[in-house]
Amino acid sequence: MLSTVAQVYPVVWQEDRVLLIDQTRLPNEYIVVEISRYEDMARAIKTMIVRGAPAIGVAAAYGVYLGARAIQTSDRDQFLAQLETVAQELRETRPTAVNLFWAIARMLKTARQTIGPVEYLKETLLQTAKQINADDIQTCQAIGDHGVKALPTSPEKLRILTHCNAGALATAGYGTALGVVRSAWRDGRLERVYADETRPRLQGAKLTAWECVQEGIPVTLISDGMAAHCMKQGLIHAVVVGADRIAANGDAANKIGTYSVAIAAKAHNVPFFVAAPLSTIDFSLSDGSGIPIEERDPVEIYQVGDTRICSPGVEFYNPAFDVTPAELITAIVTEFGAFAPSELKPQLHEKQAV
Amino acid sequence: MLSTVAQVYPVVWQEDRVLLIDQTRLPNEYIVVEISRYEDMARAIKTMIVRGAPAIGVAAAYGVYLGARAIQTSDRDQFLAQLETVAQELRETRPTAVNLFWAIARMLKTARQTIGPVEYLKETLLQTAKQINADDIQTCQAIGDHGVKALPTSPEKLRILTHCNAGALATAGYGTALGVVRSAWRDGRLERVYADETRPRLQGAKLTAWECVQEGIPVTLISDGMAAHCMKQGLIHAVVVGADRIAANGDAANKIGTYSVAIAAKAHNVPFFVAAPLSTIDFSLSDGSGIPIEERDPVEIYQVGDTRICSPGVEFYNPAFDVTPAELITAIVTEFGAFAPSELKPQLHEKQAV
Repeated sequence: MLSTVAQVYPVVWQEDRVLLIDQTRLPNEYIVVEISRYEDMARAIKTMIVRGAPAIGVAAAYGVYLGARAIQTSDRDQFLAQLETVAQELRETRPTAVNLFWAIARMLKTARQTIGPVEYLKETLLQTAKQINADDIQTCQAIGDHGVKALPTSPEKLRILTHCNAGALATAGYGTALGVVRSAWRDGRLERVYADETRPRLQGAKLTAWECVQEGIPVTLISDGMAAHCMKQGLIHAVVVGADRIAANGDAANKIGTYSVAIAAKAHNVPFFVAAPLSTIDFSLSDGSGIPIEERDPVEIYQVGDTRICSPGVEFYNPAFDVTPAELITAIVTEFGAFAPSELKPQLHEKQAV
Repeated sequence: MLSTVAQVYPVVWQEDRVLLIDQTRLPNEYIVVEISRYEDMARAIKTMIVRGAPAIGVAAAYGVYLGARAIQTSDRDQFLAQLETVAQELRETRPTAVNLFWAIARMLKTARQTIGPVEYLKETLLQTAKQINADDIQTCQAIGDHGVKALPTSPEKLRILTHCNAGALATAGYGTALGVVRSAWRDGRLERVYADETRPRLQGAKLTAWECVQEGIPVTLISDGMAAHCMKQGLIHAVVVGADRIAANGDAANKIGTYSVAIAAKAHNVPFFVAAPLSTIDFSLSDGSGIPIEERDPVEIYQVGDTRICSPGVEFYNPAFDVTPAELITAIVTEFGAFAPSELKPQLHEKQAV
C-alpha cells in the first residue's frame, strides 16, 4: 500500500531529464521513470506510461527538446530538418489527442522563429517546453474554477460522475475534469465522485479513484454499465469528463464509453460537461466525423492482470475513443470560461494561436 | 485450452444427483460439480456456480427435491412443514430472478396437491423437477424460433449485440437471447454476435463468447462502454438480451448494464428485444419499480482474477441488475410468440399457471 502523495505531477523536468510517473503501474506501485532520449519519450507515450491529452502534450514538448539536444550539428537548416524527423516520430505515437500535435507544432515554430546559433535554439526549446508545462497547470486551475461556476447551483453538495481519468495524472497537474472536481471540493460544493472504472484499461479505477483517495475526496467506483442505473436512481447531479480532441462545432472525442454516458445523461436530464484546455480544440475540423479514432491492441480487452477473461477463438474490437456529439454537451469548460458548444468558434477561435 | 463441447446443459439430473457445470470456472476450466444436498444447491445458486434466471429455476426445483428426499418422516403434515423450510432457504439465495420463486412454488404446489404416502410425494417431486428441466429446453427452442421471426428482415445477415449471458448456460439448454441467436444462425440470418463483456462478473466474455465459439458462431467481444459507439458506426442491427424478472407492463430487470444498452439502442433506432420464458413475467408487479435489485459483494468490482484494480480507500456500489423500462423495448419474445410490452398482460396472463 502506497503512502499518500500530496501533489500529483506526472511530468516533471529535473536537471537534465524528464521524470514520468509510470501510470501503467498505479495504483499498486508508484514508480518514476527517467527519460533522457526522445525515442524513450515516444515509447512512453505509446505504451501509456504517460497518458491523458494535456499530459501527452507536455511530454511531447519535452520530447522535442530531448531530440533537439541530441542533434549533432551547428548548421541551422540541418538542425531544423533533423528536428522535423524527431517531431514526426513523436506525432506517430497516438493519433487522437490533438494536444500532442499542438505542442509539437508550438515547439517547431519556436525553433524556426528563434534567431541565433543552434545551441541557443536548443536552450530556447527547453524554456518553451517548461513554459508549456507551467502553463498547463495554471490552465487546469482556471478550468477548475470556471467549471465550479458552471455546475448546477442545487443541491449545494453535488455528486459528480466522471469517466476515465482527466485528472492531475492526465495533465501537468490539477486536472481538467478532476480540476473541476478539485475546485468544487475546495469550495464545499462536492459530496462525492462516482468514477466509472473505464474498461478496458481501467483508468477510472486505477487513476481517478487513486487521485481522489490522495485528496481525501469520497469516491464510489462503479462498472461502466452502472452509470445509467445510477442516474435513474437520482445519484448523479452532473457528469464532468475530459476530451482528447474537440471539433469546431463542439463534438468531443474522449475515452471510449464517454458517448454512452452522454446519451444516458441526456435521457435523465443530467448536465454533461466537457473540461479541456483551448489546445484541445481542433478548429480545422468542422465536426467530430474527422477525428481519427485510435484502435489499440485487443490484449487490453482479453487480459486483466494475469487473467485471460475469454476463451480462444473470440474476436475483438478495441476503439480507444468515441465522439460525443455537441447536442449532448451542456457546456465545454476551458481556461477562458464555460461555453455552449455553438459558442466555441465565435468566442475562442481567435484566442488560439500556436 | 478446452476441447469443443457439442451441447451445453448446465443442469443435469444423473442417477441420484444433480450435475452442474461450474460457471465460475469457465472458460478456463470445464468442471462439473455434483450436488446431492439442498444446502449445497443453495450455495451453488448464491455463489453463481449456476446462474441465469431459467437455470436457477431448474436448479432450485431439483434443490426442493433434494431437500424433500432428506426429510425423515412419513407424516404428511410434518413433511410439508419441513419442505417449506427447505423452500425458504432456496428462496433466500438470490432475490431478483423470479423463475427461482416460480419453480419453488410449482414444486410446493405439487407436493401439496399429490395424494399418497410421503415416499410417493418425493418421487412425484423428482418427476416434476425433471419436467421443469425438460420443459425449459423446449421453451428456449420455441423462444429462439419466435425470435428469428421478430428480427428485422433486412439485411439478410444480422449483427446482433447481446449483454451478459442468456445462453444455454443460463437455462436448461439452448438459451433465451442466445436461443434467438442460435435459431438465427441455423436459418442463415446471422452474420456475427457482438458480446458485451459485462462487468463486473464478465459473463459476456467468459460465457457468451465461449458458447459462440463452441457453436462456430463468429463473435466479437467488446467492453461495455463500446456498445453505443458500435451502434453509431452502424455495426449493430438488433439487440437481444435475457431477463430476470419482467413486470406486467413490460419493464424488464436484467443484468446491470442492460438499461444503458437499451437507452443507446433507442438513440440509434436499433430494435431492442428481451427474450424470456413466460415464467419470467411477474404479473403481480404492475411495473418495474417493485422488482428487488440484488446488491452483491464489491469484491466483484475491485478484483479481477488475482488483480486488485484500485487502491484502498475507495468505496463501491455493486447492483447486480437494472430495470429497462417498457418504452425502450421493441418486443418481448416468449415461447408463445413475440409481444409488444403492452400486449403481455392481455395475451399471456391467463396462460401463466404454476
